[in-house]
Amino acid sequence: MRDFCSREGTAWMHAYSLHCLDSGTTVRVEFGDATTTADPAGSLGIIRAFPHTYGQPLAHFLRPKSQVPDAQIITDHPAIRVGVVFCGRQSPGGHNVVWGLYNALKIHNPNNVLLGFLGGSEGLFAQKTLEITDDVLSSYKNQGGFDMLGRTKDQIRTTEQVNAALASCKALNLDGLVIIGGVTSNTDAAQLAETFAEAKCTTKVVGVPVTLYGDLRNQFVETNVGFDTICKVNSQLISNVCTDALSAEKYYYFIRLMGRRASHVALECALQSHPNMVILGEEVASSKLTLFDITKQICDAIQARAEQDKYHGVILLPEGLIESIPEIYALLQEINGLHKQGVSVDNISSQLSPWASALFEFLPHFIKRELLLHPESDDSAQLSQIETEKLLAHMVEQEMNKRLKEGTYKGKKFNAICHFFGYQARGSLPSKFDCDYAFVLGHVCCHILSAGLNGYMATITNLKNPVNKWRCGAAPMTAMMTVKRWSHGPGVASIGKPAIHTANVDLKGKAYELLRQNAAKFLMDDVYRNPGPLQYEGPGADAKTVTLCVEDQDYMGRIKKLQEYLDKVRNIVKPGCSLDVLKAALSSMSSVTEVLSVMSAPSFNSQAPI
Amino acid sequence: MRDFCSREGTAWMHAYSLHCLDSGTTVRVEFGDATTTADPAGSLGIIRAFPHTYGQPLAHFLRPKSQVPDAQIITDHPAIRVGVVFCGRQSPGGHNVVWGLYNALKIHNPNNVLLGFLGGSEGLFAQKTLEITDDVLSSYKNQGGFDMLGRTKDQIRTTEQVNAALASCKALNLDGLVIIGGVTSNTDAAQLAETFAEAKCTTKVVGVPVTLYGDLRNQFVETNVGFDTICKVNSQLISNVCTDALSAEKYYYFIRLMGRRASHVALECALQSHPNMVILGEEVASSKLTLFDITKQICDAIQARAEQDKYHGVILLPEGLIESIPEIYALLQEINGLHKQGVSVDNISSQLSPWASALFEFLPHFIKRELLLHPESDDSAQLSQIETEKLLAHMVEQEMNKRLKEGTYKGKKFNAICHFFGYQARGSLPSKFDCDYAFVLGHVCCHILSAGLNGYMATITNLKNPVNKWRCGAAPMTAMMTVKRWSHGPGVASIGKPAIHTANVDLKGKAYELLRQNAAKFLMDDVYRNPGPLQYEGPGADAKTVTLCVEDQDYMGRIKKLQEYLDKVRNIVKPGCSLDVLKAALSSMSSVTEVLSVMSAPSFNSQAPI
Repeated sequence: MRDFCSREGTAWMHAYSLHCLDSGTTVRVEFGDATTTADPAGSLGIIRAFPHTYGQPLAHFLRPKSQVPDAQIITDHPAIRVGVVFCGRQSPGGHNVVWGLYNALKIHNPNNVLLGFLGGSEGLFAQKTLEITDDVLSSYKNQGGFDMLGRTKDQIRTTEQVNAALASCKALNLDGLVIIGGVTSNTDAAQLAETFAEAKCTTKVVGVPVTLYGDLRNQFVETNVGFDTICKVNSQLISNVCTDALSAEKYYYFIRLMGRRASHVALECALQSHPNMVILGEEVASSKLTLFDITKQICDAIQARAEQDKYHGVILLPEGLIESIPEIYALLQEINGLHKQGVSVDNISSQLSPWASALFEFLPHFIKRELLLHPESDDSAQLSQIETEKLLAHMVEQEMNKRLKEGTYKGKKFNAICHFFGYQARGSLPSKFDCDYAFVLGHVCCHILSAGLNGYMATITNLKNPVNKWRCGAAPMTAMMTVKRWSHGPGVASIGKPAIHTANVDLKGKAYELLRQNAAKFLMDDVYRNPGPLQYEGPGADAKTVTLCVEDQDYMGRIKKLQEYLDKVRNIVKPGCSLDVLKAALSSMSSVTEVLSVMSAPSFNSQAPI
Repeated sequence: MRDFCSREGTAWMHAYSLHCLDSGTTVRVEFGDATTTADPAGSLGIIRAFPHTYGQPLAHFLRPKSQVPDAQIITDHPAIRVGVVFCGRQSPGGHNVVWGLYNALKIHNPNNVLLGFLGGSEGLFAQKTLEITDDVLSSYKNQGGFDMLGRTKDQIRTTEQVNAALASCKALNLDGLVIIGGVTSNTDAAQLAETFAEAKCTTKVVGVPVTLYGDLRNQFVETNVGFDTICKVNSQLISNVCTDALSAEKYYYFIRLMGRRASHVALECALQSHPNMVILGEEVASSKLTLFDITKQICDAIQARAEQDKYHGVILLPEGLIESIPEIYALLQEINGLHKQGVSVDNISSQLSPWASALFEFLPHFIKRELLLHPESDDSAQLSQIETEKLLAHMVEQEMNKRLKEGTYKGKKFNAICHFFGYQARGSLPSKFDCDYAFVLGHVCCHILSAGLNGYMATITNLKNPVNKWRCGAAPMTAMMTVKRWSHGPGVASIGKPAIHTANVDLKGKAYELLRQNAAKFLMDDVYRNPGPLQYEGPGADAKTVTLCVEDQDYMGRIKKLQEYLDKVRNIVKPGCSLDVLKAALSSMSSVTEVLSVMSAPSFNSQAPI
């Protein structure tokens, strides 16, 4: 039971109507071309693994008044039964997906039934359900957490698990199963869709991108439910710490941010709050910076600031940073290997290779204990438990003391305060954006089921614009898959298996470019920016993440644009056109075709999706 | 330099006019009776120490239209020069006091000058000033931190410091000096006022109650600038953690809250967010609970919850708790004593008494190091550095493992996650309440100076009502003083010296009563409440702290009420009244007088203000 005397937050939600979708009982769907995958080298493996669900077309759900001649119009909605399950870690906004789905189902047919599985995938296997009603939803609308239904470890992967899910869907007579989660849960969803199709089970599986890490990104998915909230809450806290630093003028704050392997949260928070430094895992990995390189980098920055009589600062670190540092990564690999061989925690350190052992012994006591923790179910280290911020603060302190002693640093003593921001943001009330995004995604799920699609993810694009400009659609999950080939470490188990993989921060992307352009100013000038607390009304309520706003993400819009070009060429080059025109067209198109063929061949760029 | 692209927050502030004060150029002031002190036993000491500033009357600043026959009306405002200084730790809203003061000064006379001292009391001693202008203020309105002017260690106590302040005020030709700070800074302000009066310096000293700890409370001061913000930001984070706990269902979160010795912040946060448990320092001190008692209490709670199949929970701990635990307190005393004798940190543990040594050796390694830290300037331990939450989590874990082994506990393994919430809230944007409260206090300071008062604190009462119902006034700081007599420990230096002391949580007060009434429900039923993020518009923007709303704080209103009774009796019992009436009145009044005399005698209740 929860007591929500709080922000009476649903008022504004009830007021908005879904201009981006047909909110009546009509579903209008337009199908695009058959999809391919971004990973040409892996496509064969993906086709083989997903014979029933590979290559399906994209779907667009149209606004009430849009005129598309070959759109399919669905007006008849026989009563259906749908199941919904939370998979993976809680993310603010998850509840609103269920609300949106329920809302849409009841509009289409009051006899539609929505069953929530209690306790995540465990509930799915055990057929533990709760029928979603207005009453059940009433205290969870616009609220954080996943506690309306709960969750567990949440894998649907082993044959046993997949069969249990299949049995449940059959027993409960489900027409649709909606899986709410991140990268791994949606991979599981895709697998489930394939298995169901193979088994001629009539339950259609739909995925929804809900993960605060923001790492389920690709051509079809611009951002994930929860990411906006997490970044805003963390940015508020980081800004508060920046203000504190500026007033106290005597501490360096090392802040580690939850976010798993990719550094999306850290990048976005840096763009929102302008701390003095942020060290992204992707930078460290691409430049192969060692622990000493990073320490030196920070110390040099502190020294440069001291020369301007500044003895405070704020440094952001993503939790995934520790795995990006090459020598630590190698050490973690060895530890992980010994865990797998069943070596007990107490004996691991004595069985390390001489090289790894030397590094291990060098590290401070607290971090040793944390590195030895059993890895997570996906083979990665327990990132939330490894206090990278303390390790770096410790190393920086040692180095600064050394410089002080040697006389190369002449400033005041270095003082650090360490923070880990994660749990206190993860349970937040969702931001207005996440409330809306999740609610509309819930509606889209219902449309997908009405259209009878299986193995699709609900998508919304053009998100940086107001809700009435959003474009709703669905993309086959197989089109988002890649195959890992050269990885040798955490995640080694999934090599060769097609999966939706974590998207890393794109070091060539606009968001990162923006950070680089400002890095020197952030470092030296204390241009701290305080976005303030999450707002639900008034100025700031409609703010979106910087990452979303700076990237040109309208993938589908650009594909349309290309098709327009092709149509134009076709219209110009018709029988009767001049020979010169034909010649120019032929020459240009032959060269375009050649370039694209080379770029799309399996051998090209094959090292990209590691 | 700061970049404030953020919430465009000043909009609403410009819109409100000060209905609670005369916002024109007229100052209307009504003086009350001469003040006494709440500490009868100490009053003699206070009179002796403050011959020039003791016993001054209360002052009320009236609304434009209020009709009070003997109010003094000041319409002439010759140009004055005022200094303002931030003392002590930053607190959200401090900047708005300066803004309000500046705003009022310029309304009264455009030639008035406001000088800010740079770097706190150090700037005051060194005459380092910055003239406050619209330009200087522009990026600090409604913003957190103290960084417009900065601060340092901030004592104005030694003869040297007091003389330096005196010299500065004379040299800068100041008519007024406004000191913004907490308990100790306002004690210093009172001392400065007395010294200035003694030295016939014309600078009038005014104090402003700005401290996020909320421990500067008495008959005249209902709450402090910053407390509302801190409690709201912390409650948001605590609620987020509660939501997380409810979704993850596998952790106990131990959260330590910044707040110095008193537990006001922890109490208020508990009332706002309904965590499962909160352990107030005042409870522990009054019941003399040992570390083992507290551990046992928590373990019993965990066990009771496990019996209901609940393996998650949120426990709040004030940072001052550690000093409230009797045996730890005694240990800290010994350590403090050895510090004073100049014993080096490395040798302290070997010089402890056998009893203290045994306790010390029993404690886990990390906490030992923290207990040995040099005490703060006020002799208290470095509370923000002592990880009480980790100590308790550690002891609870050991005890739960023991119970598991013995078979008295049969539930799942206990898992703890520890947090310290302080810095991330301290730098927050001030809440709407704190913005308003601080701004109006700034205006009140200007009124105090116009009325020529010295040694007063700016006060606003009736704060739980809307701004236009607030009552503005000023109270002599000597009336808030008490004298410590029986303390023997941290703060031993101030024994016998009159001071404004930290107000502890009143275990007989309504706020604590409210907590007690709900404690069982909070513990077992997970009635977590999420107040959500700070709002500046819409629902929730005008929420006030529970503590403020439940306490009957209208002290001055009640004194007025009493005076009405006395007037009524005087009007009834006039020459010509019946003998019976006279007899009844005499008998009643004689008994009332006797009771009150006994209660006000120095010997009565003399143990109260320890």
